Amino acid sequence: MQERMTGRVKEILSWYEADSPGTRANLYRLLMTGTLAGTGKLVILPVDQGFEHGPARSFAKNPAGYDPEYHFQLAIEAGCNAYAAPLGFIETCAARYAGQIPLILKLNNSDSLSKLGGAPISAVTASVKEAVRLGCSAIGYTIYPGSDARNAQYEALRALTEEAKAHGLVVVVWSYPRGTGISKEGETAVDIAAYAAQIACQLGAHIVKVKPPKMMVEHPEAKKVYEEQKIPIGTLAERVRHVVQSSFNGKRIVIFSGGEAKGTEQLLEEIKGIKEGGGFGSIMGRNAFQRPKAEALKLLADVMKIYAT
Amino acid sequence: MQERMTGRVKEILSWYEADSPGTRANLYRLLMTGTLAGTGKLVILPVDQGFEHGPARSFAKNPAGYDPEYHFQLAIEAGCNAYAAPLGFIETCAARYAGQIPLILKLNNSDSLSKLGGAPISAVTASVKEAVRLGCSAIGYTIYPGSDARNAQYEALRALTEEAKAHGLVVVVWSYPRGTGISKEGETAVDIAAYAAQIACQLGAHIVKVKPPKMMVEHPEAKKVYEEQKIPIGTLAERVRHVVQSSFNGKRIVIFSGGEAKGTEQLLEEIKGIKEGGGFGSIMGRNAFQRPKAEALKLLADVMKIYAT
Amino acid sequence: MQERMTGRVKEILSWYEADSPGTRANLYRLLMTGTLAGTGKLVILPVDQGFEHGPARSFAKNPAGYDPEYHFQLAIEAGCNAYAAPLGFIETCAARYAGQIPLILKLNNSDSLSKLGGAPISAVTASVKEAVRLGCSAIGYTIYPGSDARNAQYEALRALTEEAKAHGLVVVVWSYPRGTGISKEGETAVDIAAYAAQIACQLGAHIVKVKPPKMMVEHPEAKKVYEEQKIPIGTLAERVRHVVQSSFNGKRIVIFSGGEAKGTEQLLEEIKGIKEGGGFGSIMGRNAFQRPKAEALKLLADVMKIYAT
Amino acid sequence: MQERMTGRVKEILSWYEADSPGTRANLYRLLMTGTLAGTGKLVILPVDQGFEHGPARSFAKNPAGYDPEYHFQLAIEAGCNAYAAPLGFIETCAARYAGQIPLILKLNNSDSLSKLGGAPISAVTASVKEAVRLGCSAIGYTIYPGSDARNAQYEALRALTEEAKAHGLVVVVWSYPRGTGISKEGETAVDIAAYAAQIACQLGAHIVKVKPPKMMVEHPEAKKVYEEQKIPIGTLAERVRHVVQSSFNGKRIVIFSGGEAKGTEQLLEEIKGIKEGGGFGSIMGRNAFQRPKAEALKLLADVMKIYAT
Amino acid sequence: MQERMTGRVKEILSWYEADSPGTRANLYRLLMTGTLAGTGKLVILPVDQGFEHGPARSFAKNPAGYDPEYHFQLAIEAGCNAYAAPLGFIETCAARYAGQIPLILKLNNSDSLSKLGGAPISAVTASVKEAVRLGCSAIGYTIYPGSDARNAQYEALRALTEEAKAHGLVVVVWSYPRGTGISKEGETAVDIAAYAAQIACQLGAHIVKVKPPKMMVEHPEAKKVYEEQKIPIGTLAERVRHVVQSSFNGKRIVIFSGGEAKGTEQLLEEIKGIKEGGGFGSIMGRNAFQRPKAEALKLLADVMKIYAT
Repeated sequence: MQERMTGRVKEILSWYEADSPGTRANLYRLLMTGTLAGTGKLVILPVDQGFEHGPARSFAKNPAGYDPEYHFQLAIEAGCNAYAAPLGFIETCAARYAGQIPLILKLNNSDSLSKLGGAPISAVTASVKEAVRLGCSAIGYTIYPGSDARNAQYEALRALTEEAKAHGLVVVVWSYPRGTGISKEGETAVDIAAYAAQIACQLGAHIVKVKPPKMMVEHPEAKKVYEEQKIPIGTLAERVRHVVQSSFNGKRIVIFSGGEAKGTEQLLEEIKGIKEGGGFGSIMGRNAFQRPKAEALKLLADVMKIYAT
Repeated sequence: MQERMTGRVKEILSWYEADSPGTRANLYRLLMTGTLAGTGKLVILPVDQGFEHGPARSFAKNPAGYDPEYHFQLAIEAGCNAYAAPLGFIETCAARYAGQIPLILKLNNSDSLSKLGGAPISAVTASVKEAVRLGCSAIGYTIYPGSDARNAQYEALRALTEEAKAHGLVVVVWSYPRGTGISKEGETAVDIAAYAAQIACQLGAHIVKVKPPKMMVEHPEAKKVYEEQKIPIGTLAERVRHVVQSSFNGKRIVIFSGGEAKGTEQLLEEIKGIKEGGGFGSIMGRNAFQRPKAEALKLLADVMKIYAT
Repeated sequence: MQERMTGRVKEILSWYEADSPGTRANLYRLLMTGTLAGTGKLVILPVDQGFEHGPARSFAKNPAGYDPEYHFQLAIEAGCNAYAAPLGFIETCAARYAGQIPLILKLNNSDSLSKLGGAPISAVTASVKEAVRLGCSAIGYTIYPGSDARNAQYEALRALTEEAKAHGLVVVVWSYPRGTGISKEGETAVDIAAYAAQIACQLGAHIVKVKPPKMMVEHPEAKKVYEEQKIPIGTLAERVRHVVQSSFNGKRIVIFSGGEAKGTEQLLEEIKGIKEGGGFGSIMGRNAFQRPKAEALKLLADVMKIYAT
Repeated sequence: MQERMTGRVKEILSWYEADSPGTRANLYRLLMTGTLAGTGKLVILPVDQGFEHGPARSFAKNPAGYDPEYHFQLAIEAGCNAYAAPLGFIETCAARYAGQIPLILKLNNSDSLSKLGGAPISAVTASVKEAVRLGCSAIGYTIYPGSDARNAQYEALRALTEEAKAHGLVVVVWSYPRGTGISKEGETAVDIAAYAAQIACQLGAHIVKVKPPKMMVEHPEAKKVYEEQKIPIGTLAERVRHVVQSSFNGKRIVIFSGGEAKGTEQLLEEIKGIKEGGGFGSIMGRNAFQRPKAEALKLLADVMKIYAT
Repeated sequence: MQERMTGRVKEILSWYEADSPGTRANLYRLLMTGTLAGTGKLVILPVDQGFEHGPARSFAKNPAGYDPEYHFQLAIEAGCNAYAAPLGFIETCAARYAGQIPLILKLNNSDSLSKLGGAPISAVTASVKEAVRLGCSAIGYTIYPGSDARNAQYEALRALTEEAKAHGLVVVVWSYPRGTGISKEGETAVDIAAYAAQIACQLGAHIVKVKPPKMMVEHPEAKKVYEEQKIPIGTLAERVRHVVQSSFNGKRIVIFSGGEAKGTEQLLEEIKGIKEGGGFGSIMGRNAFQRPKAEALKLLADVMKIYAT
């Protein structure tokens, strides 16, 4: 962790005045680590696909990734702000790399082996106590707004958030709308993405992660407002700006996922849009760890360059 | 908080003798803050629509409202008795405005993204412990009498109420009948509103919030009694009086919501009815924060003038 | 509370030897308060109809009853052994009338606004801790034997009973059979009433409340036994005697409710039957508080006279 | 409790070496009380029929049984090893007869008033804490292997067993197969009875109670094994021997219930079979307390004579 | 436990650096006990079939197995690394054989008597606290990935894992895919087995047990990857190697079950495949305890010989 506190980081920390010094110290660590330290931007490496999609689909393309140690090294060498993973992956190397990079322990996960009826909900697979034991800076939790099981998820998150804050941890919420209330197409509609960010913020998240919003408004009642108020949503930058505004007028950190592995050009284009719209950064998994290491380091460096300028 | 204890406030506090000094101190704060301090009347600013309806539908009309700080400032400048909001909105500014206005932490909330089958129930999104940590004077909780899931709600409220009282907090209950036991039309029928107020009082609420009752009696068995006993329900004032009587003969504070944004004339007319019927005040959200600030301040001042006279 | 311990009260207390001095002291208070003090008989005023049927249906007939204070005064002036009500009604006046009459806090309640599917179950609306805080002598809890949800009720009661006894409180159980196992008619059949009393006693109740049993045997297997053993059930007195015998051969206090408001003659006739059959008393709500006060006091005095002789 | 420790009791206690001295002391009490003290055999009086079948069906035949005191006296006078009953029956007399006979508190019970859908499960009606408070030597718990709700039952029993052992109590499990996995006929098939005993033992029971097994094999896969291995099941003694073997090769105490009231001859014949097969004794309710006292004492003495020889 | 620490054991322990000394000491015990001590390989005797399939089907073939003591002796004499069983079997002999062999307490179990609808889930039948009391080195827990009830299982395991680690115990997870997400055939497909191992590792297991994988890929999306990346799955050794790689690149111990009793030749062939593929050993129940003792000892010795070379 480098020591070069900046005005921007100070400003960001000022939005979290209600938090304990412990939590603010961990936020500081997240903002002051790696290549983007001090810029107020973040690039995070998340690796939960082994759990979510299975090992072969996640790691066969770049078999070094079967080994949990690989991802610690990749995140550190690439100068990421943090590394996020489920319990097992974190636990295997947390002692060896203790303190070298802020860790985000993913507290819930879903696999692709069962159907679980219609209401999406992940299993809680780790705890705040484990995050503390393993020296993590933050917990991560995924909610599915739009799921008929969303009450159980909000209530579990609420309890974990309270416990995490009481232990000086940062709370990162993956807010992924899906379920009976939303069309498949509409899951990344701009109104839905903005609403998902708002919900996570209201639930007390310090950092929110959403998918890049599409030019589409899902809910008819929202549509009326977007048209009446002429909210600009034509470009990705405009849509990102709207999501940032919906995150307490930018007073909560909101970052964007990359989604499926894709071409480098297309990906960097997207990053530029996020940066232009005032997004706080990216969380980039498959696009990083499924490439050969040298290629991944190059890509992450390019992404960081965009955010740093 | 101004120091000008009045006979009326003393009388109101005398109904809460079973409560701890801590809770009575917070009730005192609610009754002795802002323009209406000492009158025994309250006007409260609630802002949970970001969670309930989404950010654009709530704030696009007056974009200053995207920022949580705006609402703290609006409530303070307008001379409201208190400001009510979910965890995220409260947390972002609780430190900066500590002590400047009594805060009501909304402990449960619902979004518009899922259907959740047929039985209305909100998710618990904050806790008494968080209310204490953030320096709040009260907790807020919404029940839906008439919902098939009402037992879970009453039981959750019961536990939160006990905990809140043990921590010196005030309990504010939003009592909104809906569900299979009531027709859509009948949700604001006068018998239903009176019953909803009674239930909240019996559950131990210090302050009850209901919607202004309509001239309609929903339940056939109640209808018989209203006719036999010639209970007057022709005017809003009469209906409000009946609701106040149903709130332990006026020994519990019962206030009324404004509902959807509406015209100023119509709104002030409604306030006059509430005041004439002996209502203890209003809780006014969209009608306040969706107007430009100056207009909102003017409206709130007019409302308070009615209650003050 | 008058100090004139009698042989009968001593005998009754001897059945509760396994209880703590605290619980026995509260049983003593219930048996040594009011007009019937020392007789081993009880007349209790219960007012939970505001919650169960709504305020207008409960109080419009005698509007003094909207005020929680009215019922405290009525119970004290009438010389009742105790006053039973939900949290809100008790809390509003518990401080003002502290110690003047034993209080029974009703820990669960049901309203008439929802359908809740087919299995009757009340919501838990107060706690043992609240009963202790408010200076109550006893808790009250309603079970519905015959309900498909009876397991949840028995288990909740079990836990509350254990906690109440550990805090020196008395446990009063309203045992009202209803649900898929019983016909509507059969809810007050003599075999069902006796069984309901037995269940409450086995669950550890100190005082059991059932409805006056009708001359009807519901269950075919029970019918065989009633006929073979020639159990007399022709008069109310005989049926009450059977219920008392079914309450551990009379070693548990069993009292009877009055049910719907009815004519004075009919009501006093019923009381005579209960008294003759060895019943321990009555719990009388609507028949008392829906009459004008003077009339109610007269009626309660007449009822007590019957029990006292 | 008589002091005449025998080699057989020493041997039995040696199978429970993992238990605390407290639990072993209570096992000792059960084995060293009454007529069969020291023989390693047990005859226990259980009276939960008031709860399970209702008071009239249980006690009208011999009305002395309405009184809880009767059963304490019967068990003591008959020289039983222990008396088992639900909370209410135990509580009424536990103080008066403290120490005179080991008590088994039945922690769950079922009544005949509801249907509860298709999955048999009893309600938890008492606790380990109550067993300790009332000076009991053991807890009793009924499981229904074969029920779709068996997981909830095994898990509740698991927790109660752990708590009971931590408090020095003995655990007695009534293992009664029923539910969708078993035909009505097959509930007492020999393979099912043996399996039921095995499950109770694996769950950590000290004493298991099953019904006398019939000459029938229920499950096809078991049938194959019974035929291949030529397991003898032609006589009751052979079937009992198989059940005892299935109870950890006889290293867990397994006793048998008498079931419905029946003729004396038939009953004593059954006892002889159990004794010959190596069963540890009987638990005999209706056959005892529904007879006139003198007759019941004679019958129990005859039963004990068979076991003692 | 022999004292001859080896380089391989040191290497294995280095993967568990995040664990407490207590847990690592128990891992050491598991790796340093019996014939394979120091080799980094394990052969474990598990006996839960009495619970899972019933006593006759499990033990009639070799009736010595009805007695819990037999299995302790078999495991010790055969030089196994550990013995695994449910509560009852462990409890009966844990004191007599204290310290002579590492014990794994199976914390959940399923019987064959009920259907439980469609979602496979075992009952929790023992606890970490009991494992500690009985001097066990590890807990065992079975999950069914692919079951619609998998969330409840992952969450229960998560809590037990945390508690076990806090008490210095090792966590062994039986990962058996079944349920609506997987065809019956596909339960042991190589992609499913690898995924099952990955899930158990991510949930924090120290040791994972799966079934030997078949040459078949179940999921279409996985199939694409297996073909594209040309993952070799033609021989058992190749498939085992893939499963080991999927267990954090071999940094978690993964062992294989033998399944149904089978011929000796076939079984030893399978062991050779597991050994060649880098598997860490076997868990062998019915193939051991259903043979006469001498035969079982010979077989286990032959198995160990294969692993030792």
